[in-house]
Amino acid sequence: MSSANTAEISKATEQTDIKSYVAELGRAARTAADALAAAPTRAKNAALEAVAAHLLSDRAKILEANARDLRAGERAKLAAPLMERLQLDDARVEAMAEGCRQVARLPDPVGEISGMAQRPSGIRVGKMRVPLGVIGIIYESRPNVTIDAAALCLKAGNAAILRGGSEALHSNLATADALRAGLRAAKLPAEAAQVVATAERAAVGALLAMDDCIDVIVPRGGKSLIERVARESRVPVLRHLEGVCHVYIDAAADLGKAVEVAFNAKARRYGICGAMETLLVAKAVAREVLPELSRRYFAKGIELRGCDASREIVPQMKTANEDDWRAEYLDAILAVRVVEDMEQAIAHIAAYGSRHTDAIITENLSRANEFLRRVDSSSVMVNASTQFADGFEYGLGAEIGISTDKLHARGPVGLEGLTSQKYIVIGDGSVRA
Amino acid sequence: MSSANTAEISKATEQTDIKSYVAELGRAARTAADALAAAPTRAKNAALEAVAAHLLSDRAKILEANARDLRAGERAKLAAPLMERLQLDDARVEAMAEGCRQVARLPDPVGEISGMAQRPSGIRVGKMRVPLGVIGIIYESRPNVTIDAAALCLKAGNAAILRGGSEALHSNLATADALRAGLRAAKLPAEAAQVVATAERAAVGALLAMDDCIDVIVPRGGKSLIERVARESRVPVLRHLEGVCHVYIDAAADLGKAVEVAFNAKARRYGICGAMETLLVAKAVAREVLPELSRRYFAKGIELRGCDASREIVPQMKTANEDDWRAEYLDAILAVRVVEDMEQAIAHIAAYGSRHTDAIITENLSRANEFLRRVDSSSVMVNASTQFADGFEYGLGAEIGISTDKLHARGPVGLEGLTSQKYIVIGDGSVRA
Repeated sequence: MSSANTAEISKATEQTDIKSYVAELGRAARTAADALAAAPTRAKNAALEAVAAHLLSDRAKILEANARDLRAGERAKLAAPLMERLQLDDARVEAMAEGCRQVARLPDPVGEISGMAQRPSGIRVGKMRVPLGVIGIIYESRPNVTIDAAALCLKAGNAAILRGGSEALHSNLATADALRAGLRAAKLPAEAAQVVATAERAAVGALLAMDDCIDVIVPRGGKSLIERVARESRVPVLRHLEGVCHVYIDAAADLGKAVEVAFNAKARRYGICGAMETLLVAKAVAREVLPELSRRYFAKGIELRGCDASREIVPQMKTANEDDWRAEYLDAILAVRVVEDMEQAIAHIAAYGSRHTDAIITENLSRANEFLRRVDSSSVMVNASTQFADGFEYGLGAEIGISTDKLHARGPVGLEGLTSQKYIVIGDGSVRA
Repeated sequence: MSSANTAEISKATEQTDIKSYVAELGRAARTAADALAAAPTRAKNAALEAVAAHLLSDRAKILEANARDLRAGERAKLAAPLMERLQLDDARVEAMAEGCRQVARLPDPVGEISGMAQRPSGIRVGKMRVPLGVIGIIYESRPNVTIDAAALCLKAGNAAILRGGSEALHSNLATADALRAGLRAAKLPAEAAQVVATAERAAVGALLAMDDCIDVIVPRGGKSLIERVARESRVPVLRHLEGVCHVYIDAAADLGKAVEVAFNAKARRYGICGAMETLLVAKAVAREVLPELSRRYFAKGIELRGCDASREIVPQMKTANEDDWRAEYLDAILAVRVVEDMEQAIAHIAAYGSRHTDAIITENLSRANEFLRRVDSSSVMVNASTQFADGFEYGLGAEIGISTDKLHARGPVGLEGLTSQKYIVIGDGSVRA
């Protein structure tokens, strides 16, 4: 841990007024955002490559700072999963550097002009893609988010203010050194990516109130963090709430595909937001498909909680109650319900789902189209595993989160979601009649 | 005024709890939104045509209700411009009906699929355009907004809750009858377009808090209304704040074009948000262009308020102070400032503008491109009058407002801005590795 960082933390925590400290970050970010918006692609890419190089050359210092956070975490008796998320090692630092390089290789979304069309008045009208401005990232204990999020913001021409969990403060400040050094190396303002150097919770409230300096807040973390941010923020928020995802096996499903997809959607990984949490099965095929599928789930150690009709077919299931239909287990547990038909499946998803990702398994084209059209989720799938819901799988190159909101960006959010479009109008001395 | 409406108003105003009345509207809208989202284009168009027909056949009843509002307005001594906006006549009712028919003729944005691409994993990924859901419109005294806004929401597959100014309540309820009748004629739920039947101000607060039933709020009206809505709302807001628009006459301008555009940008209409409020002129051409331009402004009765350098060239100008750079006059007044160069013009626009619409007049290609890229406004123009900032002029067919926000929709908002895009994924039993 460098003495510069120690000085920086004391500077921040000595502030009797956290608000004025955060306001200072905001003003600096606003100024830096203008420079970033005008920066050529090669300068942004050079900064990202330089950040990667600094992460690797600063590795010892970063791991030392992380060790300090880990020791404090042990003293504070943090839960094991939190400690796991907090921990950096050689491989994680290398992954952060590789992430920067990957973002450098992505096409620059800024400046793209689309839809230029001649209008009867003589003007030409189109849209130009531009940065959003200043993005506030509020996250929990993973120190790698500092670099991942800053890299995406930077490539999209935005300034970032990063506020990670207090338990990761020293790790975040150590990686922030690499960010600053990389920006400076590319002659971009170091204030384009600032880490909030205080563990004070009041800093979050100050960020959420700063709608003059911050254009959008992206919270990353558990449901309670995101709900707090959405409730308090005066700045627009790109929300990623929970993923209560469904697979519906239709009466016209190919049962072989159904078993493969429904197994993958639950069992591939439990802890990701695209994991299926409730399986819906059409009554007409439940007796055919549930026994085999249940055997595979049980063999993997997955607990099934079924409705009465499911338990009649597979008596080893536990009984599901109303709470199970709403649960985001993120664990080796699956709720199972037999439904009359697609109509009832769609109604169930509307009533209990979280509008994240839902899939139908069917060979019937009309029903596939109707499901696609009517299910109001950020990703709707046909004959594919809900675990595909991911920016890399969708070809975005990277993602800053998955939005369950409807405005602006929906589903996996990549570089494009961190930009806006303005109208451009080209005339030739044109006046309106 | 029909007795049904009187009954409706008393029902609402008798409510000791306005919140529960508004909550009821919200729940009904949510249910209606599902039906609207699934409605075929021909049903939505049939409803719009039927609304138009009902507006014309109900014309006498609508004008009677409007007369009642006007009498109350006289008693309350409403200001003349407000009375003018409140007043309906044959021509205005016909324009409302024609507006519905025009929206019926626009292409349906819902269901459009774009960008379907094959991914290495075997899935195909693209986006489908879908309605936003329930849209709350909060507006002031113009009763025609009720129909204009409802028609756009309906065509984009959304349910609308409309809350107009209390001084227009009877007019709004009379037009709401036509909306309901048109929806019913097309077998769509009448709750797809509901007018809030109470003059109580608490209804606005209740709408703004209802983030479970309303997906987006569109305020239409003066700055204080929009600021209140933005401040209080728990629901995302599409904001249209003020238009402090600039024309910058560059040193490389064609001065003939400069005079035409700068005159049109101010003088064509004063009261619209795209009207120029401050003229910036490069020092190098100020002596050449300002005298002629000033003569034209003065001949039209426009007051000029200039900086010292402008007044040196045109001494008849009044003196501009700091407030003039920030003013949205919406009147026959123009602030004028001589600047060193484009750099200073861009800095002025960033410091004092409202990010609505700004134009450069130049024949220099590099500077035109730089202005387009660097000015952070919803519309940026080259050699064209700022008065072009309008959904019809841009080819959107219609507009519900002009967004000065950066997220979701920016600039004139038409049907597309009232929709969202979800990801669709098509596999063939595809599982994630």
